Amino acid sequence: MNSAEEIRKIIEHQIEILDIDRTPEMLYKPIRYALGSGGKRMRPVLTLLSCEAFSDQWQSALNAAMAIEVFHNFTLLHDDIMDNSSVRRGQPTVHCRWNDNTAILSGDAMSILAYEILGKSAPELIVKLLPIFTKVALEVCEGQQFDMDFESCDEVALDNYLEMIRLKTAVLLAGAVELGAICGGASDNDAKLMYEFGENLGLLFQITDDILDTYGNPEIFGKSIGGDIRCGKKTFLLIGAMQQASPEQRARLIELIKDNKISDELKIKSVTELYNELNVRQLAEEASDKYFNLAIEALNRVSLDEARKKELAEYAAKLRYREK
Amino acid sequence: MNSAEEIRKIIEHQIEILDIDRTPEMLYKPIRYALGSGGKRMRPVLTLLSCEAFSDQWQSALNAAMAIEVFHNFTLLHDDIMDNSSVRRGQPTVHCRWNDNTAILSGDAMSILAYEILGKSAPELIVKLLPIFTKVALEVCEGQQFDMDFESCDEVALDNYLEMIRLKTAVLLAGAVELGAICGGASDNDAKLMYEFGENLGLLFQITDDILDTYGNPEIFGKSIGGDIRCGKKTFLLIGAMQQASPEQRARLIELIKDNKISDELKIKSVTELYNELNVRQLAEEASDKYFNLAIEALNRVSLDEARKKELAEYAAKLRYREK
Repeated sequence: MNSAEEIRKIIEHQIEILDIDRTPEMLYKPIRYALGSGGKRMRPVLTLLSCEAFSDQWQSALNAAMAIEVFHNFTLLHDDIMDNSSVRRGQPTVHCRWNDNTAILSGDAMSILAYEILGKSAPELIVKLLPIFTKVALEVCEGQQFDMDFESCDEVALDNYLEMIRLKTAVLLAGAVELGAICGGASDNDAKLMYEFGENLGLLFQITDDILDTYGNPEIFGKSIGGDIRCGKKTFLLIGAMQQASPEQRARLIELIKDNKISDELKIKSVTELYNELNVRQLAEEASDKYFNLAIEALNRVSLDEARKKELAEYAAKLRYREK
Repeated sequence: MNSAEEIRKIIEHQIEILDIDRTPEMLYKPIRYALGSGGKRMRPVLTLLSCEAFSDQWQSALNAAMAIEVFHNFTLLHDDIMDNSSVRRGQPTVHCRWNDNTAILSGDAMSILAYEILGKSAPELIVKLLPIFTKVALEVCEGQQFDMDFESCDEVALDNYLEMIRLKTAVLLAGAVELGAICGGASDNDAKLMYEFGENLGLLFQITDDILDTYGNPEIFGKSIGGDIRCGKKTFLLIGAMQQASPEQRARLIELIKDNKISDELKIKSVTELYNELNVRQLAEEASDKYFNLAIEALNRVSLDEARKKELAEYAAKLRYREK
């Protein structure tokens, strides 16, 4: 069996040789650009690892893995327009490098390309993969809508936040893992357990993201620290803090988040101090641990030998304890 | 067999009962709005008519027909952002009624919904329908990109224009007809002929659109006349005129199209006069006739009794001689 790192290299190579240098150039060049900018390739790696766990080969899941990766990058492309983000993985976003129309249309083409790639799977697989792929793809849109809806909400309940990140982030990881399992020949029950594994992995991944954005080591994290606080983004930390705060602390937190006059530096420092007072980092770490344990429990229930699940369990641990 | 009008009513009803009133409301409400605003339902009508021609029933093609219609309306939604159009079928466009982000995300969800609906077809059909659907869907994006590329071109060759409308408009009609034929059990050869029928129908449809935008009867057409001239849009008429013009007429035409100071009324009147001098309406009518004949020839070669093809032939004639 291949290590996660070996699998990641397979994915990188497959992206390099992906047949997308077509005409019109202005449609396909931004797609090549968006796909070429690296990232962890977490979703397709999980798809192939999952397939290998069941079948000792990753090849039958390759199209599903690539479809998931192309779809994921499509959502980033459109999210960056909607969030008006100018940088992604250290590079200008597509709508900044080119323009909004290019980002809209190249994104549209990417979402269809994802289906083109998925459709190259074996015919007996296609009918199983298609409804799962489509379900999670639609849920990602629903999650993005909830996230945008939250922007204009004064307050968001933690449960609603968790449901939002489940849709926006976790279900695509879950789908990635399940598709791989199905391509590897998993039983219906095992495929469902693998979905559960991936879903909990997705939840802990997002909560860890929220933690790192405030508490990450700037030299390792790769992005500037405090971006979420600067934008007043509703994260696990902010929502957790609002929930834990005394009326005075709440008022102070709301005032700080809404304050457009203080410097970013002071805002980040002051909000982080409040987070520390309220112990929200620990709250988030506990939540992350909880989902990690749920993920591992689901994986344990899969009817495979321990040895076959080792790579996936290690990958989960790496996501839980990542620093970037 | 049902008439095209009866089939259109079936489509309207199916749109009404489509299961899309889901949460979050801000994602699905614009989808309902976009799908509910009428139109000719030409593509899904063609899908069902095509299925009935081969099988005496339309039911097996219903999902394919609805998928095509949802996909078509998704492209309109995103095109309206890109073209900054504020009115569609007499109603505010989604990005004007709500905002750009809503139109982007609801559009994204619609393109996935199209696949969700297509995926409800019988399993043995799915593997045949999926690659055709995906191919034409991607080509529609390519056509839209060429159309946008043309905006910044001083001049466009007629062949390039025809290739653009083939991609942007004709292939989706062609796909609609072919999917219906396949659902009706057509042979591979007949399915290809039906695609050819639909493609030529699509070309004549777009050229007729160009003609009507300048020469339509304003009381019947439903849109104001001369919109294309006002925007300097590269249509069959403008490109044909540039091709036919003397150096003096060309210079006059370019000057008129670029002139931002004259009134819309005068610009439309003057350009139309030049069109008349150059006989471009006739040129466009001849092209439209050519594609109509090619469509009918393809249909004639389909291995079905004349009686089974009557409804489709009549529908083609209706599209050729439409006034709105």
